[in-house]
Amino acid sequence: MMIVMKATATEAEIDAVIDRIQGVGAVAHPSRGEEITVIGAIGDREHVARLELEGAPGVAKVVRILKPYKLASKELRREPSVFEIGGARIGGDSFALIAGPCTVESREQTVGTARVVKDAGAAMFRGGAYKPRTSPYAFSGLGESGLRLLAEAKAETGLPIVTELRDARDLEPVLEVADVIQVGARNMQNYTLLTELGRAGRPVLLKRGLTATLEELLMAAEYILKEGNPHVILCERGIRTFETSYRFTLDLLAIPVLKELSHLPVVVDPSHAAGRRSLVEPMSLAAAAAGADGIIVEVHPNPAEAICDGPQAVVNDDFAALVGRIEQAAAVAGKVLSAAV
Amino acid sequence: MMIVMKATATEAEIDAVIDRIQGVGAVAHPSRGEEITVIGAIGDREHVARLELEGAPGVAKVVRILKPYKLASKELRREPSVFEIGGARIGGDSFALIAGPCTVESREQTVGTARVVKDAGAAMFRGGAYKPRTSPYAFSGLGESGLRLLAEAKAETGLPIVTELRDARDLEPVLEVADVIQVGARNMQNYTLLTELGRAGRPVLLKRGLTATLEELLMAAEYILKEGNPHVILCERGIRTFETSYRFTLDLLAIPVLKELSHLPVVVDPSHAAGRRSLVEPMSLAAAAAGADGIIVEVHPNPAEAICDGPQAVVNDDFAALVGRIEQAAAVAGKVLSAAV
Amino acid sequence: MMIVMKATATEAEIDAVIDRIQGVGAVAHPSRGEEITVIGAIGDREHVARLELEGAPGVAKVVRILKPYKLASKELRREPSVFEIGGARIGGDSFALIAGPCTVESREQTVGTARVVKDAGAAMFRGGAYKPRTSPYAFSGLGESGLRLLAEAKAETGLPIVTELRDARDLEPVLEVADVIQVGARNMQNYTLLTELGRAGRPVLLKRGLTATLEELLMAAEYILKEGNPHVILCERGIRTFETSYRFTLDLLAIPVLKELSHLPVVVDPSHAAGRRSLVEPMSLAAAAAGADGIIVEVHPNPAEAICDGPQAVVNDDFAALVGRIEQAAAVAGKVLSAAV
Amino acid sequence: MMIVMKATATEAEIDAVIDRIQGVGAVAHPSRGEEITVIGAIGDREHVARLELEGAPGVAKVVRILKPYKLASKELRREPSVFEIGGARIGGDSFALIAGPCTVESREQTVGTARVVKDAGAAMFRGGAYKPRTSPYAFSGLGESGLRLLAEAKAETGLPIVTELRDARDLEPVLEVADVIQVGARNMQNYTLLTELGRAGRPVLLKRGLTATLEELLMAAEYILKEGNPHVILCERGIRTFETSYRFTLDLLAIPVLKELSHLPVVVDPSHAAGRRSLVEPMSLAAAAAGADGIIVEVHPNPAEAICDGPQAVVNDDFAALVGRIEQAAAVAGKVLSAAV
Repeated sequence: MMIVMKATATEAEIDAVIDRIQGVGAVAHPSRGEEITVIGAIGDREHVARLELEGAPGVAKVVRILKPYKLASKELRREPSVFEIGGARIGGDSFALIAGPCTVESREQTVGTARVVKDAGAAMFRGGAYKPRTSPYAFSGLGESGLRLLAEAKAETGLPIVTELRDARDLEPVLEVADVIQVGARNMQNYTLLTELGRAGRPVLLKRGLTATLEELLMAAEYILKEGNPHVILCERGIRTFETSYRFTLDLLAIPVLKELSHLPVVVDPSHAAGRRSLVEPMSLAAAAAGADGIIVEVHPNPAEAICDGPQAVVNDDFAALVGRIEQAAAVAGKVLSAAV
Repeated sequence: MMIVMKATATEAEIDAVIDRIQGVGAVAHPSRGEEITVIGAIGDREHVARLELEGAPGVAKVVRILKPYKLASKELRREPSVFEIGGARIGGDSFALIAGPCTVESREQTVGTARVVKDAGAAMFRGGAYKPRTSPYAFSGLGESGLRLLAEAKAETGLPIVTELRDARDLEPVLEVADVIQVGARNMQNYTLLTELGRAGRPVLLKRGLTATLEELLMAAEYILKEGNPHVILCERGIRTFETSYRFTLDLLAIPVLKELSHLPVVVDPSHAAGRRSLVEPMSLAAAAAGADGIIVEVHPNPAEAICDGPQAVVNDDFAALVGRIEQAAAVAGKVLSAAV
Repeated sequence: MMIVMKATATEAEIDAVIDRIQGVGAVAHPSRGEEITVIGAIGDREHVARLELEGAPGVAKVVRILKPYKLASKELRREPSVFEIGGARIGGDSFALIAGPCTVESREQTVGTARVVKDAGAAMFRGGAYKPRTSPYAFSGLGESGLRLLAEAKAETGLPIVTELRDARDLEPVLEVADVIQVGARNMQNYTLLTELGRAGRPVLLKRGLTATLEELLMAAEYILKEGNPHVILCERGIRTFETSYRFTLDLLAIPVLKELSHLPVVVDPSHAAGRRSLVEPMSLAAAAAGADGIIVEVHPNPAEAICDGPQAVVNDDFAALVGRIEQAAAVAGKVLSAAV
Repeated sequence: MMIVMKATATEAEIDAVIDRIQGVGAVAHPSRGEEITVIGAIGDREHVARLELEGAPGVAKVVRILKPYKLASKELRREPSVFEIGGARIGGDSFALIAGPCTVESREQTVGTARVVKDAGAAMFRGGAYKPRTSPYAFSGLGESGLRLLAEAKAETGLPIVTELRDARDLEPVLEVADVIQVGARNMQNYTLLTELGRAGRPVLLKRGLTATLEELLMAAEYILKEGNPHVILCERGIRTFETSYRFTLDLLAIPVLKELSHLPVVVDPSHAAGRRSLVEPMSLAAAAAGADGIIVEVHPNPAEAICDGPQAVVNDDFAALVGRIEQAAAVAGKVLSAAV
């Protein structure tokens, strides 16, 4: 940590900062320039982190040097993490396509879509049984009966299941079905949920919050990793900006930047950012070409009848053609589609 | 809801939209202009809300007309809601000052600060026992023993207690102490938590999420109100923008705009947005002059020793002077400080 | 335009709005619902635009229906515009690669880089002679002697030249060299500059402002088109958001959305958004795969010595390999690289 | 400047950075920690600023220590600047109220409003003759005949005139009338305009761009100051964020933060941020209570008939009452209204 003193800082103020640094067991390295003095604080990460010097007399600025996460960082592990889930691989050279309906509605819609997804070469099947909704008046998912439909889809197709956990109290039934547990964007900083998932040990697909920085996303991953669960897949799904021509701004720079910072796989959800079917294909191709380790996309047999997010769902009948183009885009980035066994 | 058709929409596409509207039991009112056709959909709010027409052929834009919340709205209740909590009033002409440490650390710090706050004329005492932290390595509160210290502060001073609930599973011990339960910004869309608090019936101080629109804040309030708990206090605490000279951008326009949209009281947290002590006073005065129904501010006997957020805490010894100036600013907006009995 | 009245609007307020609409020569279509009344105002675009009803008594919301631009819109011209510049084509199935140094520094750097760019198959050569700089103390370009170096590069390679015009008073010398005149992001709403460029008739590459909505970008294009110059190329170059891990957030959703709204070609500048060389390739590939009509990228023989923006420049020696991969990504979107003749 | 090396940086990479620093004539201070090395670069501000080390091998992060502006900074001048303009004072303990119509429309509207403004105790009269408009089809001001109407208003009332310069080529006629020249938000980074205004020597009211950081605002001021014109008034007028319930987010934290960074006076424009009359009063009071040195507010005799921005104009008849409340709010911050002589 570097503490930049104000040009007007007195010697007494500088000494007080040095004392505080030594007080937490760290070493202070002052550099006195002509205009200002900068003091380095070097020591144990946790101790230094507790030095709350921002408000101290004479202090202009405090600059953190070390990253506030460890287990998620590239420093810990230089090689990209590759996870094998139900026979499919994600990370490294393997691109995983995760597809399925926004929400599980019926046996036919669920199992039928799973078959389409499987036949097109997807790695996993997604479907929501517990849906967080902005409005208390909206449909919030079939709950446990939805989980049973997902289990049927898995039995029929062999595809591993990705489904969202909204509340830690539903963990047990979700663990019975899910191969990957999704944490929604609104729950990215629900720390009790993250801690439980860290303990549960099942792979987690962690969606970036609407307004979360990449550092905060990695800190959220760190909550899970810290409990001993190494299987965290990061997911960019659009951030909130001033633009109103589409739902969220899909931040594809996040892909190469996360890969510089972390060894964890990065997938992209083009459906929720776009909010409209016609934008899903160009964003899927862009994500694949930019080096994403996968995409998670919504498909539906008949979007006009979908209970939720119909406008953004790709029609089942168009899905195989889309997969072909995604395969081509992933190849540009040196990746190969990995299908479930 | 108004459905704006594209200039290129065919008659068949227009008819299909009209059919969809009638299919959910609403009435369609088409207006055919020279360039485009606009179709009004008038009917039951929930039914119309389920019309997901954004992706439909020929549709250019869908414009919602009715607000998606009811119980929080000014339409339901024209007069501002005024709540009485432990003898203090909040809302209408009454301005409530809520103050205390970020986190409860010790008996002396807690009870001592509560006395200072009480003597200066505050309405309520705040203090955190469960703290959500971005880093899994940071101190996350004393938990139940923190709650016991808050109970002591209440016993000593008579001040009602405001404290945060982070996880629905801690609801019972929190209910034993809290007069107002705070929902943190990161939990604003934790819908299971909101629903539980709606059922618990205790007043709730609901903080706006970092990236939540005012409409989403009111939707979150609606989750609580819908369960039969009318006592929701809205709290502006800064939103995330591109500016990096301070921690968050305090959105004071939210005060008059929320008051146009809703009858619920609106308070402001200047401490978390500013992140620095020197900015807390100007923002407290601005909030009061803009018509806020209260502020919630952090104070500490010795911020340099504070476990969390010391740099933004007002020093206990300076607090009474600050309260005097806040009283003057509130008077500009026609409000009077309401102290706990 | 639709005027949504408040639930509390009186008959007199509704009538007053209808009178205002008729007063500008438009036709009013009121629809009275059970809760609220909505009034359509249909008539000449300019007249209706002058109806400033937002503040009027009883009015809850005013919703514009027609787009505020005409000449830039897809309604005017359904087919994508394709421009031929110095033998290269941009738009439709043609992908144009524009490359060169951030700023023109010397004869060797300029002409040498132009040769590298030409050999790799680029469509145009870019280089700045007038540089807008945030700091008044920074280098602001060689000015007219820089333009002469660009002319030499053109004479040597035959590549058409793209260069920025910062001030309308430099228009004449710039017109002597430039085949395409660039408008920088900070000048996107410099309306006098846009109007002059509309009159000059030379193709314009219009960069999106850091905080401009897509609608505002199209309105800025409209300023140029309205003066009779149809050759406007839109350029996405990153918007400002809360994220600080990279310089700007590259908004690739802008590509398909601009193509839905407008017939104008859309190019992407990956260099300025990323700010770092390692991010330029993944973002170039993503832009091409998403359907951009071209990219404009910075290259330099020796970035460590570059006067400006060295850290984001691709090294000349790596450029040909990059072009090969971009060609592959453009093919995914059905486009072919178009080189200068 | 501090250069933070990656944990993986080699000795050769560290040495190369030290060489680069010494190469520009600065001194390198390396601090080697257990995990990483940090190198301080201390020397002449301009030289150090040219060290573009972000992309260099082994470099993790570059942290600027010195502010990139000098003349605008508090370091240069500890005491707040106070300007006297036409007898009124702005800065220090003096609060200046600047009011008038958005745009000059007619003799009666202009001179009549100037009288109302003068009688209510304003310091200056504002009115636009050249209006930047997002749409090329919108009214863009009366131009020189508008300036003549402003001259009449000044002759009648003695109030100093604040009016916008949109294009440097109109500088001469504007200088004949204006006591303060306004630079609009869209022109905040129009560097040729800023430089011309620096040379013209007339006081400048510089509006913050929609997306400009406070540092960029101060850099824009530096362009003017650097030419020898010390009279720059900074103006906060709302920034662009994700919120859509009002036009722009008024950033009142900018007031105390700018005052920590700079000696220049800070005023607030509540009208353009709010976009609606009902929000102008609470935001005016908040700005005054937060310590602004003035506000610039739009008034109109009959907003329903205003050519531009009618919905946000305060009605002339309500203005005196508003001034009374603003005076009270300014007093909370220790300031007194300063009227034109």
